Amino acid sequence: MNLGLSTTLHTSFDDACTRNALSQQGFGVLTEIDMRATLETELGETMEDYLILGACNPPLAHQAVGIDRQIGLLLPCNVIVRRDPTSDKGIIVGAMNPQLMVQVTDEPALQPIAAQASAKLRPAIDSLDHTASAY
Amino acid sequence: MNLGLSTTLHTSFDDACTRNALSQQGFGVLTEIDMRATLETELGETMEDYLILGACNPPLAHQAVGIDRQIGLLLPCNVIVRRDPTSDKGIIVGAMNPQLMVQVTDEPALQPIAAQASAKLRPAIDSLDHTASAY
Repeated sequence: MNLGLSTTLHTSFDDACTRNALSQQGFGVLTEIDMRATLETELGETMEDYLILGACNPPLAHQAVGIDRQIGLLLPCNVIVRRDPTSDKGIIVGAMNPQLMVQVTDEPALQPIAAQASAKLRPAIDSLDHTASAY
Repeated sequence: MNLGLSTTLHTSFDDACTRNALSQQGFGVLTEIDMRATLETELGETMEDYLILGACNPPLAHQAVGIDRQIGLLLPCNVIVRRDPTSDKGIIVGAMNPQLMVQVTDEPALQPIAAQASAKLRPAIDSLDHTASAY
């Protein structure tokens, strides 16, 4: 199983189009971590641009927590927007594969929720290709 | 494998002691999601108090991203602080089991990092029992 659903864009580093694509599939971005800035501030280490967005689809989150009360350990669904370290011009956008929820909890009742989440995240990620190529 | 490391406290709902316990083990809380408030605002649904804290130990995060660049899909380490739905007086604090990182990535080089994270999270969670019982 793949850890994430991802695409590589050839555009400038800008998470706005990712947020917009997620929003169109019903995912709000509840949290944001700037990994590059955090590691630079805390450790003085440098790395490429790297954002971790916490995306939440409230109806799916509500269903999931109704099935497994500790599922918050795996929520929200992380979406990373990062510069390809091998190419300055590539931006990699990846979303956590929702099937992980089923795999690690061994809770088959989460399967239809994970499937719905994947069915929304996959087109959100895929739509970025078209957005980016229009730039 | 357990999804989380957890304890149940008999104290008031207050995430401050959890934040303090995490801090003492080198974890900063970078994000916070109030699941109860989010589901109430977005869906009009009610549930018990439920916070998702995103805890990050920068040196361990730095090591992890150096081994697997997409590990941000599983960072930060979630810690949930929630009211026991079966008892108003119980507060359940759980942390994501860092071994999940190794399991889902199938990346053995992450094992020592996951072990270090567990060795810090376990005492943080366990210390809450003593804190709570002193209340």
